[in-house]
Amino acid sequence: MLLEQIHQTNDIKKIDPKDYPLLAEEIRQFLIEKISVTGGHLGSNLGAVELTMALHLALNLPEDKIVWDVGHQSYTHKVLTGRQEGFDTLRKYGGLSGFPKRKESDCDSFDTGHSSTSISAGLGLVKARDIQGGTNAVVSVIGDGSLTGGMAYEALNNAARMESNFIIILNDNNMSISENVGGVSKYLNNIRTSNTYLDVKDGIYDAIRKTKYGDGVVSGVRRVKNSLKQLVIPGMWFEDIGITYLGPVDGHDVNGLVRVINEAKRRKNCVLIHVMTQKGKGYAPAEKHPARFHGAEPFDVATGIPLKKKTKANYTDVFSTVMVKMAARHPDVVAITAAMPDGTGLKRFRNLYPERFFDVGIAEEHAVTFAAGLAVGGLHPVVAIYSSFLQRAYDQILHDVCLQNLPVIFAIDRAGLVGSDGETHQGIFDLSYLSSVPNMHIMAPKNKWELSDMMKFAYNFKGPIAIRYPRGEAYDGLQQMRAPVLYGKSEMIYEESEIALFAAGSMVKTGEKVRESLKAQNLNCTLVNARFIKPIDEEMVRYLAQNHKLIVTMEENVLSGGLGEKVREFADREKLPVNVLTVAIPDEYVEHGNVDILKKEIGIDEASIVEKILKEL
Amino acid sequence: MLLEQIHQTNDIKKIDPKDYPLLAEEIRQFLIEKISVTGGHLGSNLGAVELTMALHLALNLPEDKIVWDVGHQSYTHKVLTGRQEGFDTLRKYGGLSGFPKRKESDCDSFDTGHSSTSISAGLGLVKARDIQGGTNAVVSVIGDGSLTGGMAYEALNNAARMESNFIIILNDNNMSISENVGGVSKYLNNIRTSNTYLDVKDGIYDAIRKTKYGDGVVSGVRRVKNSLKQLVIPGMWFEDIGITYLGPVDGHDVNGLVRVINEAKRRKNCVLIHVMTQKGKGYAPAEKHPARFHGAEPFDVATGIPLKKKTKANYTDVFSTVMVKMAARHPDVVAITAAMPDGTGLKRFRNLYPERFFDVGIAEEHAVTFAAGLAVGGLHPVVAIYSSFLQRAYDQILHDVCLQNLPVIFAIDRAGLVGSDGETHQGIFDLSYLSSVPNMHIMAPKNKWELSDMMKFAYNFKGPIAIRYPRGEAYDGLQQMRAPVLYGKSEMIYEESEIALFAAGSMVKTGEKVRESLKAQNLNCTLVNARFIKPIDEEMVRYLAQNHKLIVTMEENVLSGGLGEKVREFADREKLPVNVLTVAIPDEYVEHGNVDILKKEIGIDEASIVEKILKEL
Repeated sequence: MLLEQIHQTNDIKKIDPKDYPLLAEEIRQFLIEKISVTGGHLGSNLGAVELTMALHLALNLPEDKIVWDVGHQSYTHKVLTGRQEGFDTLRKYGGLSGFPKRKESDCDSFDTGHSSTSISAGLGLVKARDIQGGTNAVVSVIGDGSLTGGMAYEALNNAARMESNFIIILNDNNMSISENVGGVSKYLNNIRTSNTYLDVKDGIYDAIRKTKYGDGVVSGVRRVKNSLKQLVIPGMWFEDIGITYLGPVDGHDVNGLVRVINEAKRRKNCVLIHVMTQKGKGYAPAEKHPARFHGAEPFDVATGIPLKKKTKANYTDVFSTVMVKMAARHPDVVAITAAMPDGTGLKRFRNLYPERFFDVGIAEEHAVTFAAGLAVGGLHPVVAIYSSFLQRAYDQILHDVCLQNLPVIFAIDRAGLVGSDGETHQGIFDLSYLSSVPNMHIMAPKNKWELSDMMKFAYNFKGPIAIRYPRGEAYDGLQQMRAPVLYGKSEMIYEESEIALFAAGSMVKTGEKVRESLKAQNLNCTLVNARFIKPIDEEMVRYLAQNHKLIVTMEENVLSGGLGEKVREFADREKLPVNVLTVAIPDEYVEHGNVDILKKEIGIDEASIVEKILKEL
Repeated sequence: MLLEQIHQTNDIKKIDPKDYPLLAEEIRQFLIEKISVTGGHLGSNLGAVELTMALHLALNLPEDKIVWDVGHQSYTHKVLTGRQEGFDTLRKYGGLSGFPKRKESDCDSFDTGHSSTSISAGLGLVKARDIQGGTNAVVSVIGDGSLTGGMAYEALNNAARMESNFIIILNDNNMSISENVGGVSKYLNNIRTSNTYLDVKDGIYDAIRKTKYGDGVVSGVRRVKNSLKQLVIPGMWFEDIGITYLGPVDGHDVNGLVRVINEAKRRKNCVLIHVMTQKGKGYAPAEKHPARFHGAEPFDVATGIPLKKKTKANYTDVFSTVMVKMAARHPDVVAITAAMPDGTGLKRFRNLYPERFFDVGIAEEHAVTFAAGLAVGGLHPVVAIYSSFLQRAYDQILHDVCLQNLPVIFAIDRAGLVGSDGETHQGIFDLSYLSSVPNMHIMAPKNKWELSDMMKFAYNFKGPIAIRYPRGEAYDGLQQMRAPVLYGKSEMIYEESEIALFAAGSMVKTGEKVRESLKAQNLNCTLVNARFIKPIDEEMVRYLAQNHKLIVTMEENVLSGGLGEKVREFADREKLPVNVLTVAIPDEYVEHGNVDILKKEIGIDEASIVEKILKEL
């Protein structure tokens, strides 16, 4: 096994170049084997094996810096930097992260997770190097999907006209998470389907030679104002703004890649290397079903079939169904996703109502303001974006949707802890950032039926409104509790006395268990489903205060600006005769791992809450 | 006077075409006269007079829709839609807004204020039209500066490949607020300095004809794979991604503009019209000093000199000075602005330390992640962005700077009410959105000396830290109060008993007045300068609670997630024997007008606060 010779950074340089294909094959087998057990991002990693090997061969780590855009394609990089053993704990609590982490290795130059940040970060490393007189290389590796995000373009614009070396590698698999959208994708595709630079140039010359004027024309044409180079070089736009374009090059040819990276290192400006790769390369099921193997659950290696059968619907499925029904009933309903038709559950909507469906690319800012435009134009848009990605559109929500008080529904999936993706993906800030925005309204369903009811309420509401729901299995308890959703009203689940649990969304289920534990200790316990986080149901809080000595707020969100602070603010301002205990996520980032473990660690699991309540009493 | 014939929308169509230049001249005089009295955005409006006239001539308002990017160039549009009389109250409380407002006119299609939103919004209006079978035109007017913002690119990417009409007008004056930056600016400049399409094409043909092979080559060249069109059309990148490019055209020729807009209306796809305009056109002082007349204070028409002499330094000046000093002392200090070197006070820094200064364009997202990269690279970046614009970078602050706990200083100017720019520019959310972010620290200075002290503290702090300070004159009272800035510690200004005012930043000055008013009513009053909003000084709050019956928090920020909720949360959680009254901005947008009037309206002026305190007692 060649892989056994790779113990630490730069060990790859000891491998005989003729063995590169074999090493690539071994790495692929290693990744498939490990990820089939732990789950993880398979397709993007299989696509980037040779590219990563070439980077490690051409660069000198850790002095040279690689910034991985998004970062979930950095597994081979981890394999090559002494972290093979960590793969058994990949994405598990306390184990190897699925993303680059500076605290994990000095070869991880910059933490990533969200899309389109790598060129900005890389440019920062370049300028820091130049100011301090360094000589190290800086390479940002960005996928074609990430190029649909505006900040990548902001960064490209700044990288242009630079007078020192900066290498951007465009890892182009014509497929980020879902199909790419828009003009730039078409532009890249045109380059992709053309031949390489030299081939094209030769073709042009041939074509001219075949005119009756023959060879000499070529030199004549050279004299025209805009040179022939502009006519034939793919990636001319990059050249136009002042970035040297190299490519397209085969992303599965290690030696070819090393050559072009070395060439790029010699330039005294910003160079973009356009690398063509295949997502899922080398594993037939992943090549065939790239979306399924983007972020894979544990699977059977032989067939690619997930090991665990999905038995219960998740909230995404529920949302998916209700969207299709709403669309059938209401012709003004349109749906928007930012490159996540599968992840958000909008695929069925797209298939049934393609003209009312918009995948805007990884472009959350545009998505939200586009929705504002649709709403002003008389439609009722539903914007489906994960909680942590919607952070990107805070200003657009505030400035474009809510300022004009427009009927836009925000369907916020992955709200709360998401687990194995870790810090960058936990959806634990939305209650806070949305609460600060005037005219915004926020709901969270306790179970799958309530998500459906809330969507209907939101449609009739005719103003900006957000519904946040967690990743994973939809709660199917409390089916009998289905009082109509009324504006600003919470829902009494169990009414008793002493302690009142006032829980938002996923925490209602936890509240049931907390209540049982407390009852076992002879403590009477009321459970209220908050339903609305903004505005809170002040009447209910007042009522609870009159009949309880303690109100316990429960939310899967940070404390600052969330449900708990609102309830406490009201109770204290109104001098209600009650103590308030706020159960929320502490003011810190939450790492990756199993959600149940994480909840325990941060003190929002059943046992911790019971303990807090007993202490408070 | 031709202008006297313009009473309402479409009246311009009654004007004899030969009189268009005269009307343009009258509009310019009208704008200069009015803005010289009220203040406002002069340069951009003088540049857009003919373009706006042409739009009103070629379109049918209000059925057709115009979306003005940023929106401060919409004055002529207001003049032509029956709002001439409003110009005496321009940007005053209750008066005409300096930005498009749907509630002001049915000819204002979409409210704007921040940059780079118009293509997204316009695209929404287009899709809404198409889905509902409408036939109206939609035109988004965007400046070249706004094109440096990533979301404009996200939108362009989506507008490409469209199969129905959408008109984007690129209003290119090669100068947004300050000089444009980056590769795209260079690209546009290349187009700009070349001749128009036909001229260039002729030139190319001429060049080829002059080769020894003569005329026939032209048809030969046509046969090459990439057509000659690509060689000679400026704006080819737009064409490449699937947007028809028309231009460049003279932005001060009404009839020419009408022709090209009419041509654009006939297309069945997205068309970009590249219009060349001159900022400040027709008023010599504004042509000469575009930055000064971007947002002008009242001025003398004859000379262009501001009527009111600046007598006191504002916070921007203080920041400017301290940055230059810090740069001299600390070679790792670098500065970043998003197209606001003048507005943020970084011009002196730029002139003295050009290699450590970065103007990234209107690109707040990139600015922040770029700063993260600089920090990882070993430098200490200061990011100077206005409060309301920093909203754009919420995710980058959370995901790129604070997650890695990087030493980045955020210098947040225009925090609090800004006055005449209105809803979109009030900096009243930063305490909330920044508070929700783990690892972030937030300070606010009470006076000009404290801003300087806090900057020095921030430099030594070595973690993410924000300093927010308001627009306008820096407070120069309380000079004798200059205790060292210590981590998480507030500052006792006056210690008494009964009532404790706990004020952040600008509210310390208000607190002094409130205290005097209360003392006049024989109420003893302690005044504390919070200094830190995150973390709050819990020890001080505890101390105040022991010696006072009421703590009054005071902040120029919305309540949700701000200082008041934090203090209340701590006091109530710890069951401190004190009442808390939170003075903050209510949960609503604050319109334009004089800041003193606005403070009264929303109840955070001296008198309102005294009244609230007396009521609470």
